[in-house]
Amino acid sequence: MSSIRKIACYLTLMLLLNCVIQGEMIWLSELLEGRMFPEQNMRGDFAIYRDTLELVWSELVWFPVPVSAGNADAEVAFENSWMAERSYGGKRGHEGTDIMASVDEPGYYPVVSITDGIIEQVGWLEKGGWRIGVRSGNGNYYYYAHLASYAKEWNAGEPVEAGELLGYMGDTGYGPEGTTGQFPVHLHLGIYVPLGADQEMAVNPYWMLKYLENKKLSYSY
Amino acid sequence: MSSIRKIACYLTLMLLLNCVIQGEMIWLSELLEGRMFPEQNMRGDFAIYRDTLELVWSELVWFPVPVSAGNADAEVAFENSWMAERSYGGKRGHEGTDIMASVDEPGYYPVVSITDGIIEQVGWLEKGGWRIGVRSGNGNYYYYAHLASYAKEWNAGEPVEAGELLGYMGDTGYGPEGTTGQFPVHLHLGIYVPLGADQEMAVNPYWMLKYLENKKLSYSY
Repeated sequence: MSSIRKIACYLTLMLLLNCVIQGEMIWLSELLEGRMFPEQNMRGDFAIYRDTLELVWSELVWFPVPVSAGNADAEVAFENSWMAERSYGGKRGHEGTDIMASVDEPGYYPVVSITDGIIEQVGWLEKGGWRIGVRSGNGNYYYYAHLASYAKEWNAGEPVEAGELLGYMGDTGYGPEGTTGQFPVHLHLGIYVPLGADQEMAVNPYWMLKYLENKKLSYSY
Repeated sequence: MSSIRKIACYLTLMLLLNCVIQGEMIWLSELLEGRMFPEQNMRGDFAIYRDTLELVWSELVWFPVPVSAGNADAEVAFENSWMAERSYGGKRGHEGTDIMASVDEPGYYPVVSITDGIIEQVGWLEKGGWRIGVRSGNGNYYYYAHLASYAKEWNAGEPVEAGELLGYMGDTGYGPEGTTGQFPVHLHLGIYVPLGADQEMAVNPYWMLKYLENKKLSYSY
Protein backbone atom coordinates (compact mmCIF):
# COMPACT_ATOMS: atom_id res chain seq x y z
CA MET A 1 0.00 0.00 0.00
CA SER A 2 1.40 3.43 -0.93
CA SER A 3 1.99 6.09 1.73
CA ILE A 4 -0.69 8.31 0.18
CA ARG A 5 -3.19 5.49 0.28
CA LYS A 6 -2.30 4.82 3.94
CA ILE A 7 -2.81 8.48 4.86
CA ALA A 8 -6.12 8.65 2.94
CA CYS A 9 -7.30 5.51 4.69
CA TYR A 10 -6.27 6.96 8.10
CA LEU A 11 -8.00 10.32 7.42
CA THR A 12 -11.20 8.61 6.26
CA LEU A 13 -11.22 6.53 9.43
CA MET A 14 -10.66 9.60 11.63
CA LEU A 15 -13.44 11.42 9.81
CA LEU A 16 -15.82 8.52 10.36
CA LEU A 17 -14.90 8.28 14.05
CA ASN A 18 -15.35 12.02 14.38
CA CYS A 19 -18.84 11.82 12.84
CA VAL A 20 -19.83 9.05 15.24
CA ILE A 21 -18.48 10.97 18.25
CA GLN A 22 -20.09 14.25 17.21
CA GLY A 23 -23.42 12.57 16.63
CA GLU A 24 -23.24 11.03 20.05
CA MET A 25 -22.25 14.34 21.60
CA ILE A 26 -25.36 16.08 20.27
CA TRP A 27 -27.58 13.25 21.43
CA LEU A 28 -25.82 13.26 24.81
CA SER A 29 -26.10 17.00 25.32
CA GLU A 30 -29.81 16.90 24.56
CA LEU A 31 -30.20 14.02 26.93
CA LEU A 32 -28.22 15.64 29.70
CA GLU A 33 -29.80 19.07 29.47
CA GLY A 34 -32.21 18.33 32.28
CA ARG A 35 -29.43 17.04 34.53
CA MET A 36 -26.97 19.81 33.75
CA PHE A 37 -29.52 22.52 34.55
CA PRO A 38 -31.81 20.88 37.11
CA GLU A 39 -33.45 24.18 38.02
CA GLN A 40 -35.10 24.26 34.61
CA ASN A 41 -37.01 21.14 35.58
CA MET A 42 -37.73 22.11 39.19
CA ARG A 43 -40.81 24.11 38.29
CA GLY A 44 -42.35 21.14 36.48
CA ASP A 45 -41.38 18.69 39.21
CA PHE A 46 -42.71 20.90 41.94
CA ALA A 47 -45.97 21.38 40.08
CA ILE A 48 -46.45 17.60 39.92
CA TYR A 49 -45.93 17.19 43.66
CA ARG A 50 -47.99 20.28 44.45
CA ASP A 51 -50.86 18.94 42.34
CA THR A 52 -50.52 15.50 43.98
CA LEU A 53 -51.00 17.12 47.38
CA GLU A 54 -53.81 19.28 46.00
CA LEU A 55 -55.72 16.08 45.18
CA VAL A 56 -55.46 14.98 48.82
CA TRP A 57 -56.81 18.33 50.05
CA SER A 58 -59.67 18.32 47.59
CA GLU A 59 -60.95 14.88 48.67
CA LEU A 60 -61.01 15.52 52.44
CA VAL A 61 -64.61 15.54 53.69
CA TRP A 62 -65.00 14.63 57.37
CA PHE A 63 -62.85 14.66 60.49
CA PRO A 64 -62.22 10.96 61.34
CA VAL A 65 -63.75 11.18 64.84
CA PRO A 66 -67.33 12.53 65.07
CA VAL A 67 -68.33 14.64 68.08
CA SER A 68 -70.40 12.96 70.75
CA ALA A 69 -74.03 14.09 70.67
CA GLY A 70 -74.43 12.98 74.28
CA ASN A 71 -71.17 13.44 76.17
CA ALA A 72 -69.60 16.92 76.05
CA ASP A 73 -66.60 15.57 77.99
CA ALA A 74 -65.70 13.15 75.19
CA GLU A 75 -63.08 15.17 73.36
CA VAL A 76 -60.14 14.49 71.12
CA ALA A 77 -56.85 16.35 70.75
CA PHE A 78 -53.85 16.07 68.45
CA GLU A 79 -50.49 17.72 67.97
CA ASN A 80 -48.07 18.04 65.11
CA SER A 81 -45.81 15.04 65.74
CA TRP A 82 -44.60 14.81 62.13
CA MET A 83 -41.41 12.73 62.08
CA ALA A 84 -41.11 12.79 65.87
CA GLU A 85 -39.08 9.78 66.97
CA ARG A 86 -40.77 6.44 67.61
CA SER A 87 -38.86 3.50 69.04
CA TYR A 88 -41.14 0.41 68.83
CA GLY A 89 -39.83 -1.83 66.04
CA GLY A 90 -36.64 0.17 65.52
CA LYS A 91 -36.01 3.90 65.54
CA ARG A 92 -38.18 5.68 62.98
CA GLY A 93 -39.95 8.98 62.34
CA HIS A 94 -43.66 9.30 63.08
CA GLU A 95 -45.39 9.26 59.70
CA GLY A 96 -48.80 10.34 60.84
CA THR A 97 -50.87 12.09 63.46
CA ASP A 98 -52.16 10.61 66.72
CA ILE A 99 -55.65 11.69 67.74
CA MET A 100 -55.79 11.26 71.49
CA ALA A 101 -58.98 10.57 73.48
CA SER A 102 -60.06 12.31 76.70
CA VAL A 103 -62.06 9.15 77.51
CA ASP A 104 -59.36 6.44 77.70
CA GLU A 105 -61.73 3.57 76.93
CA PRO A 106 -61.22 1.21 73.97
CA GLY A 107 -64.28 1.01 71.71
CA TYR A 108 -65.81 4.27 72.95
CA TYR A 109 -65.11 6.68 70.07
CA PRO A 110 -66.39 5.98 66.54
CA VAL A 111 -63.92 6.32 63.65
CA VAL A 112 -65.31 7.33 60.24
CA SER A 113 -63.74 7.50 56.81
CA ILE A 114 -62.34 10.93 55.94
CA THR A 115 -62.92 10.34 52.23
CA ASP A 116 -64.82 8.26 49.75
CA GLY A 117 -62.80 5.24 48.71
CA ILE A 118 -62.32 1.49 48.56
CA ILE A 119 -61.30 -0.73 51.48
CA GLU A 120 -57.82 -1.97 50.56
CA GLN A 121 -56.36 -3.44 53.76
CA VAL A 122 -58.05 -4.80 56.83
CA GLY A 123 -56.74 -6.93 59.71
CA TRP A 124 -53.86 -7.09 62.18
CA LEU A 125 -50.47 -5.39 61.85
CA GLU A 126 -47.78 -5.70 64.53
CA LYS A 127 -47.30 -1.92 64.70
CA GLY A 128 -50.81 -0.84 63.66
CA GLY A 129 -52.94 -3.37 65.55
CA TRP A 130 -56.41 -3.72 64.02
CA ARG A 131 -56.21 -1.36 61.08
CA ILE A 132 -58.13 -0.30 57.99
CA GLY A 133 -56.59 1.13 54.84
CA VAL A 134 -58.84 3.07 52.45
CA ARG A 135 -57.73 3.94 48.90
CA SER A 136 -59.35 7.12 47.53
CA GLY A 137 -60.43 7.61 43.94
CA ASN A 138 -57.36 9.81 43.39
CA GLY A 139 -55.14 6.93 44.51
CA ASN A 140 -54.22 8.21 47.97
CA TYR A 141 -54.08 5.84 50.92
CA TYR A 142 -55.66 6.54 54.33
CA TYR A 143 -54.41 4.35 57.16
CA TYR A 144 -56.45 4.11 60.39
CA ALA A 145 -54.60 2.16 63.09
CA HIS A 146 -54.99 0.78 66.65
CA LEU A 147 -58.76 0.21 66.32
CA ALA A 148 -60.55 -1.63 69.16
CA SER A 149 -62.94 -3.26 66.68
CA TYR A 150 -64.46 -2.93 63.24
CA ALA A 151 -67.93 -1.57 62.47
CA LYS A 152 -68.57 -4.77 60.48
CA GLU A 153 -66.65 -7.49 58.70
CA TRP A 154 -64.95 -5.43 56.02
CA ASN A 155 -63.69 -7.03 52.83
CA ALA A 156 -60.98 -5.65 50.57
CA GLY A 157 -62.59 -4.03 47.52
CA GLU A 158 -65.70 -2.82 49.32
CA PRO A 159 -66.58 0.82 48.65
CA VAL A 160 -66.82 3.19 51.59
CA GLU A 161 -68.25 6.70 51.78
CA ALA A 162 -66.82 9.69 53.58
CA GLY A 163 -68.38 9.77 57.05
CA GLU A 164 -69.16 6.04 57.09
CA LEU A 165 -68.35 4.23 60.31
CA LEU A 166 -65.17 2.14 59.92
CA GLY A 167 -64.73 0.97 63.51
CA TYR A 168 -63.95 2.13 67.04
CA MET A 169 -60.89 3.80 68.50
CA GLY A 170 -58.72 1.54 70.60
CA ASP A 171 -55.25 0.69 71.87
CA THR A 172 -54.35 -2.36 69.78
CA GLY A 173 -50.90 -3.09 68.38
CA TYR A 174 -47.22 -3.14 69.33
CA GLY A 175 -47.21 -6.91 69.59
CA PRO A 176 -48.76 -10.16 68.27
CA GLU A 177 -52.42 -10.29 67.19
CA GLY A 178 -54.74 -9.14 69.96
CA THR A 179 -52.17 -7.09 71.91
CA THR A 180 -53.79 -4.14 73.73
CA GLY A 181 -52.88 -1.60 76.37
CA GLN A 182 -49.32 -0.80 75.21
CA PHE A 183 -50.28 2.91 74.99
CA PRO A 184 -53.31 5.15 75.67
CA VAL A 185 -56.39 4.86 73.44
CA HIS A 186 -55.86 6.87 70.24
CA LEU A 187 -56.34 6.85 66.49
CA HIS A 188 -53.18 6.88 64.41
CA LEU A 189 -53.93 8.41 61.02
CA GLY A 190 -51.50 8.09 58.12
CA ILE A 191 -51.95 9.60 54.65
CA TYR A 192 -49.87 8.33 51.73
CA VAL A 193 -49.68 9.62 48.17
CA PRO A 194 -48.64 7.52 45.15
CA LEU A 195 -45.15 7.97 43.68
CA GLY A 196 -44.92 6.49 40.21
CA ALA A 197 -45.77 2.85 39.59
CA ASP A 198 -45.59 1.11 42.95
CA GLN A 199 -44.19 3.42 45.59
CA GLU A 200 -45.91 5.77 47.95
CA MET A 201 -44.92 8.43 50.44
CA ALA A 202 -46.33 9.76 53.68
CA VAL A 203 -47.54 13.33 53.93
CA ASN A 204 -48.20 15.15 57.20
CA PRO A 205 -51.88 14.71 58.14
CA TYR A 206 -51.69 17.37 60.87
CA TRP A 207 -52.67 20.43 58.75
CA MET A 208 -55.35 18.38 57.04
CA LEU A 209 -56.83 17.42 60.41
CA LYS A 210 -56.68 21.08 61.51
CA TYR A 211 -58.67 21.92 58.38
CA LEU A 212 -61.15 19.10 59.10
CA GLU A 213 -61.67 20.23 62.70
CA ASN A 214 -64.47 22.42 61.34
CA LYS A 215 -65.98 19.44 59.55
CA LYS A 216 -67.08 17.00 62.22
CA LEU A 217 -70.09 14.72 62.09
CA SER A 218 -72.20 14.21 65.23
CA TYR A 219 -72.70 10.61 66.39
CA SER A 220 -74.62 9.30 69.40
CA TYR A 221 -72.04 7.84 71.82
CA MET B 1 0.14 -5.59 2.28
CA SER B 2 -0.71 -9.26 2.64
CA SER B 3 -4.29 -10.40 3.19
CA ILE B 4 -3.42 -11.70 6.65
CA ARG B 5 -1.91 -8.35 7.62
CA LYS B 6 -5.05 -6.58 6.30
CA ILE B 7 -7.33 -8.83 8.37
CA ALA B 8 -5.16 -8.42 11.48
CA CYS B 9 -5.22 -4.63 11.05
CA TYR B 10 -9.01 -4.69 10.60
CA LEU B 11 -9.55 -6.85 13.67
CA THR B 12 -7.29 -4.66 15.82
CA LEU B 13 -9.23 -1.59 14.75
CA MET B 14 -12.57 -3.24 15.49
CA LEU B 15 -11.25 -4.29 18.89
CA LEU B 16 -10.14 -0.74 19.65
CA LEU B 17 -13.48 0.73 18.54
CA ASN B 18 -15.25 -1.87 20.63
CA CYS B 19 -13.24 -0.88 23.71
CA VAL B 20 -14.07 2.80 23.19
CA ILE B 21 -17.76 2.07 22.70
CA GLN B 22 -17.93 -0.30 25.69
CA GLY B 23 -16.19 2.25 27.92
CA GLU B 24 -18.66 4.88 26.88
CA MET B 25 -21.59 2.52 27.41
CA ILE B 26 -20.62 1.89 31.04
CA TRP B 27 -20.15 5.61 31.67
CA LEU B 28 -23.43 6.32 29.93
CA SER B 29 -25.40 3.69 31.82
CA GLU B 30 -24.11 5.02 35.14
CA LEU B 31 -24.98 8.52 34.06
CA LEU B 32 -28.44 7.61 32.84
CA GLU B 33 -29.40 5.45 35.78
CA GLY B 34 -31.34 8.28 37.41
CA ARG B 35 -33.16 9.00 34.18
CA MET B 36 -33.80 5.41 33.23
CA PHE B 37 -35.29 4.66 36.62
CA PRO B 38 -36.72 8.00 37.70
CA GLU B 39 -38.82 6.41 40.43
CA GLN B 40 -35.68 5.78 42.46
CA ASN B 41 -35.28 9.53 42.79
CA MET B 42 -38.94 10.42 43.27
CA ARG B 43 -38.96 9.75 47.00
CA GLY B 44 -36.11 12.18 47.63
CA ASP B 45 -37.54 14.83 45.31
CA PHE B 46 -40.97 14.57 46.83
CA ALA B 47 -39.55 14.85 50.33
CA ILE B 48 -37.82 18.12 49.38
CA TYR B 49 -41.05 19.64 48.06
CA ARG B 50 -43.11 18.25 50.92
CA ASP B 51 -40.68 19.77 53.43
CA THR B 52 -40.73 23.08 51.52
CA LEU B 53 -44.49 23.22 51.91
CA GLU B 54 -44.22 22.10 55.53
CA LEU B 55 -42.19 25.25 56.24
CA VAL B 56 -45.01 27.40 54.86
CA TRP B 57 -47.56 25.68 57.09
CA SER B 58 -45.41 25.96 60.18
CA GLU B 59 -44.99 29.74 59.84
CA LEU B 60 -48.67 30.65 59.39
CA VAL B 61 -49.90 32.61 62.42
CA TRP B 62 -52.86 34.91 61.68
CA PHE B 63 -55.64 35.13 59.12
CA PRO B 64 -54.84 38.24 57.02
CA VAL B 65 -58.14 40.01 57.77
CA PRO B 66 -59.02 40.49 61.48
CA VAL B 67 -62.66 40.27 62.56
CA SER B 68 -64.44 43.54 63.30
CA ALA B 69 -64.95 44.08 67.00
CA GLY B 70 -67.77 46.54 66.24
CA ASN B 71 -69.58 45.47 63.07
CA ALA B 72 -70.87 41.90 62.96
CA ASP B 73 -71.99 42.46 59.34
CA ALA B 74 -68.41 43.05 58.20
CA GLU B 75 -67.54 39.61 56.94
CA VAL B 76 -65.13 38.09 54.46
CA ALA B 77 -65.48 35.04 52.25
CA PHE B 78 -63.21 33.15 49.89
CA GLU B 79 -63.39 30.21 47.55
CA ASN B 80 -60.86 27.84 46.05
CA SER B 81 -60.11 29.61 42.76
CA TRP B 82 -56.71 27.96 42.30
CA MET B 83 -55.70 28.33 38.65
CA ALA B 84 -59.15 29.57 37.63
CA GLU B 85 -58.83 31.60 34.44
CA ARG B 86 -58.03 35.31 34.63
CA SER B 87 -58.03 37.48 31.51
CA TYR B 88 -56.60 40.90 32.48
CA GLY B 89 -53.09 41.17 30.99
CA GLY B 90 -53.40 38.00 28.93
CA LYS B 91 -54.97 34.64 29.75
CA ARG B 92 -53.47 33.14 32.89
CA GLY B 93 -54.32 30.93 35.85
CA HIS B 94 -55.22 32.48 39.20
CA GLU B 95 -52.17 31.97 41.43
CA GLY B 96 -53.75 32.93 44.71
CA THR B 97 -56.91 33.35 46.72
CA ASP B 98 -59.28 36.33 46.69
CA ILE B 99 -60.75 37.28 50.04
CA MET B 100 -63.99 39.10 49.26
CA ALA B 101 -65.58 41.74 51.48
CA SER B 102 -69.26 41.95 52.47
CA VAL B 103 -68.72 45.72 52.97
CA ASP B 104 -67.68 46.88 49.46
CA GLU B 105 -65.83 49.97 50.70
CA PRO B 106 -62.13 50.60 49.96
CA GLY B 107 -60.08 51.21 53.12
CA TYR B 108 -62.63 49.62 55.46
CA TYR B 109 -61.02 46.26 56.30
CA PRO B 110 -57.56 46.07 57.89
CA VAL B 111 -55.02 43.67 56.37
CA VAL B 112 -52.39 42.15 58.69
CA SER B 113 -49.32 40.06 58.02
CA ILE B 114 -49.93 36.32 58.19
CA THR B 115 -46.35 35.65 59.24
CA ASP B 116 -43.26 37.25 60.68
CA GLY B 117 -40.98 38.50 57.94
CA ILE B 118 -39.25 41.34 56.14
CA ILE B 119 -40.93 43.83 53.81
CA GLU B 120 -39.48 43.07 50.39
CA GLN B 121 -41.71 44.85 47.89
CA VAL B 122 -43.97 47.85 48.31
CA GLY B 123 -45.63 50.13 45.73
CA TRP B 124 -47.74 49.95 42.56
CA LEU B 125 -48.05 47.03 40.18
CA GLU B 126 -50.28 47.14 37.11
CA LYS B 127 -52.02 43.88 38.02
CA GLY B 128 -51.64 44.09 41.81
CA GLY B 129 -52.34 47.77 42.45
CA TRP B 130 -50.90 48.95 45.77
CA ARG B 131 -49.23 45.83 47.05
CA ILE B 132 -46.92 44.61 49.81
CA GLY B 133 -44.63 41.59 49.57
CA VAL B 134 -43.35 40.04 52.80
CA ARG B 135 -40.48 37.53 52.83
CA SER B 136 -40.63 35.07 55.74
CA GLY B 137 -37.61 33.76 57.61
CA ASN B 138 -37.95 30.45 55.76
CA GLY B 139 -37.68 32.31 52.43
CA ASN B 140 -41.33 32.17 51.40
CA TYR B 141 -43.01 35.18 49.81
CA TYR B 142 -46.43 36.53 50.83
CA TYR B 143 -48.03 38.87 48.32
CA TYR B 144 -50.92 41.13 49.44
CA ALA B 145 -52.48 42.97 46.48
CA HIS B 146 -55.15 45.61 45.62
CA LEU B 147 -54.70 47.55 48.90
CA ALA B 148 -56.55 50.86 49.27
CA SER B 149 -53.69 52.30 51.32
CA TYR B 150 -50.74 51.37 53.51
CA ALA B 151 -50.72 51.43 57.32
CA LYS B 152 -47.58 53.59 57.12
CA GLU B 153 -44.77 54.37 54.71
CA TRP B 154 -43.17 50.94 54.48
CA ASN B 155 -39.56 50.55 53.38
CA ALA B 156 -38.01 47.43 51.89
CA GLY B 157 -35.98 45.63 54.54
CA GLU B 158 -38.21 46.61 57.46
CA PRO B 159 -39.17 43.72 59.74
CA VAL B 160 -42.84 42.95 60.25
CA GLU B 161 -44.53 40.73 62.82
CA ALA B 162 -47.39 38.33 62.27
CA GLY B 163 -50.61 40.21 63.01
CA GLU B 164 -49.08 43.64 62.33
CA LEU B 165 -51.24 46.01 60.28
CA LEU B 166 -49.90 46.24 56.69
CA GLY B 167 -52.65 48.38 55.15
CA TYR B 168 -56.30 48.41 54.16
CA MET B 169 -58.26 46.29 51.73
CA GLY B 170 -59.14 48.03 48.47
CA ASP B 171 -59.85 47.74 44.77
CA THR B 172 -56.64 49.11 43.24
CA GLY B 173 -54.96 47.73 40.13
CA TYR B 174 -55.71 46.57 36.57
CA GLY B 175 -54.33 49.81 35.11
CA PRO B 176 -51.83 52.63 35.58
CA GLU B 177 -50.90 53.88 39.06
CA GLY B 178 -53.95 54.94 41.03
CA THR B 179 -56.51 52.88 39.07
CA THR B 180 -59.43 51.80 41.27
CA GLY B 181 -62.87 50.31 40.86
CA GLN B 182 -62.08 47.71 38.17
CA PHE B 183 -63.47 44.97 40.45
CA PRO B 184 -65.11 44.65 43.90
CA VAL B 185 -63.06 45.35 47.03
CA HIS B 186 -61.01 42.29 47.94
CA LEU B 187 -57.60 41.10 49.12
CA HIS B 188 -55.64 38.97 46.69
CA LEU B 189 -53.24 36.76 48.61
CA GLY B 190 -50.41 34.93 46.86
CA ILE B 191 -47.92 32.57 48.52
CA TYR B 192 -44.68 31.65 46.73
CA VAL B 193 -42.00 29.17 47.76
CA PRO B 194 -38.37 29.33 46.63
CA LEU B 195 -37.17 26.94 43.92
CA GLY B 196 -33.38 26.71 43.82
CA ALA B 197 -31.26 29.82 43.33
CA ASP B 198 -33.58 32.47 41.94
CA GLN B 199 -36.91 30.99 40.98
CA GLU B 200 -40.09 30.69 42.95
CA MET B 201 -43.43 29.02 42.54
CA ALA B 202 -46.97 29.72 43.66
CA VAL B 203 -48.73 27.37 46.06
CA ASN B 204 -52.48 27.35 46.67
CA PRO B 205 -53.25 29.61 49.68
CA TYR B 206 -56.83 28.35 49.94
CA TRP B 207 -56.23 25.44 52.38
CA MET B 208 -53.88 27.62 54.39
CA LEU B 209 -56.57 30.29 54.70
CA LYS B 210 -59.11 27.62 55.71
CA TYR B 211 -56.68 26.58 58.44
CA LEU B 212 -56.22 30.23 59.50
CA GLU B 213 -59.98 30.86 59.68
CA ASN B 214 -59.73 29.71 63.31
CA LYS B 215 -56.89 32.16 63.92
CA LYS B 216 -58.32 35.63 63.48
CA LEU B 217 -57.32 38.73 65.38
CA SER B 218 -60.02 41.20 66.47
CA TYR B 219 -59.56 44.81 65.36
CA SER B 220 -61.79 47.83 66.02
CA TYR B 221 -63.29 48.85 62.67
